[in-house]
Amino acid sequence: MTALDRQSPAAIAAAVNSGETNALAVAEETLARLAAYDAVQPQIWISRAAPADMLAAARKVDARIAAGERLSLAGVPFAVKDNIDVAGFETSAACPAYAYSPSGSATVAGKLTEAGALCVGKTNLDQFATGLVGTRSPYGIPRNAYNLAYVSGGSSSGSAIAVAAGLVGFALGTDTAGSGRVPAAFNHLVGLKPSKGRWSTRGLVPACRTIDCITVFTDNVSDARLVDNVLAGFDPGDPYSKPRADITLRPQRIGVPRRDQRAWFGDSQSEYLYERAISRLGTDAEVVELDITPLNEAASLLYNGPWVAERAAAIQELLASNPDAIDETVRSVVEPGLTISAVELFKGIYRLAELKRHADVLWDKIDVLAFPTTGTTYRVAELIAAPIALNSNLGFYTNFVNLLDMAAVAVPAGSRSNGTGFGITLIGPADSDQALLAAAETYLAAADLPAPPVLDMEGKMEHVKLAVVGAHLKDMPLHWQLSSRNAVFIGAFETAPTYRLYAIADSVPPKPALIHSDDGAAIKVEVYELDVAAFGSFVAEVPAPLAIGTVTLADGTSVKGFVAEPRATAGAEDITDLGGWRAYVKAD
Amino acid sequence: MTALDRQSPAAIAAAVNSGETNALAVAEETLARLAAYDAVQPQIWISRAAPADMLAAARKVDARIAAGERLSLAGVPFAVKDNIDVAGFETSAACPAYAYSPSGSATVAGKLTEAGALCVGKTNLDQFATGLVGTRSPYGIPRNAYNLAYVSGGSSSGSAIAVAAGLVGFALGTDTAGSGRVPAAFNHLVGLKPSKGRWSTRGLVPACRTIDCITVFTDNVSDARLVDNVLAGFDPGDPYSKPRADITLRPQRIGVPRRDQRAWFGDSQSEYLYERAISRLGTDAEVVELDITPLNEAASLLYNGPWVAERAAAIQELLASNPDAIDETVRSVVEPGLTISAVELFKGIYRLAELKRHADVLWDKIDVLAFPTTGTTYRVAELIAAPIALNSNLGFYTNFVNLLDMAAVAVPAGSRSNGTGFGITLIGPADSDQALLAAAETYLAAADLPAPPVLDMEGKMEHVKLAVVGAHLKDMPLHWQLSSRNAVFIGAFETAPTYRLYAIADSVPPKPALIHSDDGAAIKVEVYELDVAAFGSFVAEVPAPLAIGTVTLADGTSVKGFVAEPRATAGAEDITDLGGWRAYVKAD
Repeated sequence: MTALDRQSPAAIAAAVNSGETNALAVAEETLARLAAYDAVQPQIWISRAAPADMLAAARKVDARIAAGERLSLAGVPFAVKDNIDVAGFETSAACPAYAYSPSGSATVAGKLTEAGALCVGKTNLDQFATGLVGTRSPYGIPRNAYNLAYVSGGSSSGSAIAVAAGLVGFALGTDTAGSGRVPAAFNHLVGLKPSKGRWSTRGLVPACRTIDCITVFTDNVSDARLVDNVLAGFDPGDPYSKPRADITLRPQRIGVPRRDQRAWFGDSQSEYLYERAISRLGTDAEVVELDITPLNEAASLLYNGPWVAERAAAIQELLASNPDAIDETVRSVVEPGLTISAVELFKGIYRLAELKRHADVLWDKIDVLAFPTTGTTYRVAELIAAPIALNSNLGFYTNFVNLLDMAAVAVPAGSRSNGTGFGITLIGPADSDQALLAAAETYLAAADLPAPPVLDMEGKMEHVKLAVVGAHLKDMPLHWQLSSRNAVFIGAFETAPTYRLYAIADSVPPKPALIHSDDGAAIKVEVYELDVAAFGSFVAEVPAPLAIGTVTLADGTSVKGFVAEPRATAGAEDITDLGGWRAYVKAD
Repeated sequence: MTALDRQSPAAIAAAVNSGETNALAVAEETLARLAAYDAVQPQIWISRAAPADMLAAARKVDARIAAGERLSLAGVPFAVKDNIDVAGFETSAACPAYAYSPSGSATVAGKLTEAGALCVGKTNLDQFATGLVGTRSPYGIPRNAYNLAYVSGGSSSGSAIAVAAGLVGFALGTDTAGSGRVPAAFNHLVGLKPSKGRWSTRGLVPACRTIDCITVFTDNVSDARLVDNVLAGFDPGDPYSKPRADITLRPQRIGVPRRDQRAWFGDSQSEYLYERAISRLGTDAEVVELDITPLNEAASLLYNGPWVAERAAAIQELLASNPDAIDETVRSVVEPGLTISAVELFKGIYRLAELKRHADVLWDKIDVLAFPTTGTTYRVAELIAAPIALNSNLGFYTNFVNLLDMAAVAVPAGSRSNGTGFGITLIGPADSDQALLAAAETYLAAADLPAPPVLDMEGKMEHVKLAVVGAHLKDMPLHWQLSSRNAVFIGAFETAPTYRLYAIADSVPPKPALIHSDDGAAIKVEVYELDVAAFGSFVAEVPAPLAIGTVTLADGTSVKGFVAEPRATAGAEDITDLGGWRAYVKAD
């Protein structure tokens, strides 16, 4: 199966409005796509519209068109993150114990429906929108649409994948710490995080209610603009809503982090792609390096400061009544918020006001910030092994934005060799949304990026058993290469009595070579199971003269396992008599 | 001594700029006035400029004028509440243990000096600006300039009195809950509480930093406008500062509290004066009665909700290190703020945002609010007896304003028969400051109020000893009339043996009559001491046939005391043999 075709909202609406097609046909096509991708990642959804309901909704749109209406999103299928109310769907925030049936739709969902769009379902997310990864959900872990071994990004994980996989024309996410931008970056999408208050948040399950924003993922900038034009505007039902305002902004001075303050977490591909993006941005503009210390300090208020209490306020009742219903990582992040005092919060509020003043002064020096969206990405297995530290790394360039009342547009900026997207985010002051979209369009035209790679459609990932014999054994120096990939220990076994074991000469760390030989012995091995993605990435890192081949176990079955090129035995010590690598290491 | 002449800042500046007089002469005159009023209420000051320094500062202004400068406040003497930094003065916030020497002047003080004004000293206040009364200071209790028995209003007590007594052309106060308005009302002054952020608060000791405003007291509206024109404007050193903005506003629809929601606390004079003010406002405008429930709820967040924690944040270190240094009432109000959680505060922040939306909708129905500034006033002694409850009553119409980001101008609206001022406050949305001043001017022209009464210049109040013989004895039904006046118990005595005691017929509560008689006996009395103001107000309430006359004690000295008209004995029972009222009451 190849990548699903993309569906542009503008093109769909134009075709439906003109009668070239109708909403019903679009809905039928959408149902087929949804079914196809269900074979790959059904876990991107928490709930879906019944097909009959979708078709009925499509017929209503067609009736409106037939009655002479022209609808800016006529027939466009869209998905909604499951922390935003849509009438007819439960809202779960990815926590079954929290789920409720809303009395109606969020303001944004209502506006989209009114504009002719069709909600196909509610998407998975990091529970209570707390996370930038997508791994924190009891509904399964959405994975990067371009490499299933990698995180989707979060918390708006399912929404991003629904767009990346071509299932919907656009999808609503939310963004408090970067949740509307990080998944866009990882999946080669555009992510618009509007100015605070520009889009109503009535009907949104709060994460940090004072800074939460609803966002949109699209394939391109013009579709994000289309959605902004539908959603921007005052909502008297949302105390944080503001009237739409649009400031002008000419992106002639581009602010970037000072070189020594950039964080890549060892990811040189991201570093390269950022340099390339900045040089393209710099063709028609001046690039200004900024001291980002005040931005970093603002960011730290979010998860290492009193705003954690805001997340606790949002789920205070559940924390008290049913704490075990909460994802363990999410709870470990949020629960400390209960013990923060109002005095601490006031002090944080003051500090934020000061930092906001610092940030305001930025706009005297530069017109727009162009930051990496993230400095790197991670495998799902890596995230599971270090769920908080790696998540924090992903927020390095995003956490400050909402606290400092800025608007942001995440745009693609290239592909890592593993297929995951790298992105940059254009950031401007409040009400610069449309100006940022224009700047993003200009940048993308100049960047002229190749099309994203094909989607990773491996479907339910198979698992592979791997026999290790030396430095990857438990407690040995390279064992982390397995544990970080979430490899599952199957057992300690012996090979068929047809192998010789050598200690390779001058190998650091010391490694053995397992060589098949009729004149052999049974050699002790450990067998692990990895998913194919983890296995593949593991194999990619195996150095010569070792290789991954097939190893026969004592019971006659075969598993994948470490073998060696012939050269491995040059100058090597034959240690077959010891029966295994542990005995050799001990004796050594 | 009669009332001191008032000094209009505009008139002083004009005279100094034109050379008609000079700053030195104004300063010398000011020093004379300050000395004169020191005989009345030295406790309105916490510190004062040394005369030599004041004269030197005046000479500098004169030198600037001589050099051709024209200064909008040339030579105008002003006072500054002692929670605002002025270089050369300590800042105490009325707490000696908190006092510090500031490194420089607050932005506002610097601007005023730059404009040619002369700071004569720092004024007393309710400690840490927590209070609306003026009684909460270890530096003494400033009293109403027009009736020394009554509270000055607070927390900007000294500043209001300095203007009311004609000592300075204007004085800076501050306002978080009404501190810049309540003292204006009580002392027949104009009090401008600008929009949040309009005047820099850099150099202000915070009370609730997110909503604190610096304010000004003046004799008239045009002087408040003059000061606003000097002080309004952006200060990069204050994170809460905003650029000056002025919205237009035509006060054609005047919002007033719904009749059943007005609170007068038994003060029918205030009620009458408010009705009169509204009828005058209503001549050219429509008066609209409003449901003020949302405003009341916002107000309750300030002292009965999480904003108490903001006051605690401001003095957290002192509360921990030296709690006894804090005024007992202030501490009892602020200390509970330490135990409020950030979760509670976030919930308060959300509720406030909702209430703000309610308030915003107000401006669709009306152009300006015209509320009583307070529903009543109190004697100092009453405040001392019930320091928290009565203080709360004074904030009924003021507490919501800053939380809801409104501007306000308190203006005089008449005099109670005791000489204290009643005022109304015009309240508008943020940035309506100048529009409110214009509306205030129009109102005052229409109201055509008589001049305020003469100042109460009794000076250091004498104390009076009063012998009570009946229902005012300790634990008797009318004893509260003494305790509420802070009467001090001197001792239990007997009269000279020249009195007869009668139980008056049909008196409720039962009361005796002490009648001088050569054929008498020694009668038990209690002697209390009251200040003259308290004594006077006490006497005013004594009903016939009783009276306050002179009573001779057993030792031959005389004190004031209860005597009776002759009619008191009509039908009365002679109880002289019992030797005192207690014995009669017991026997009864």
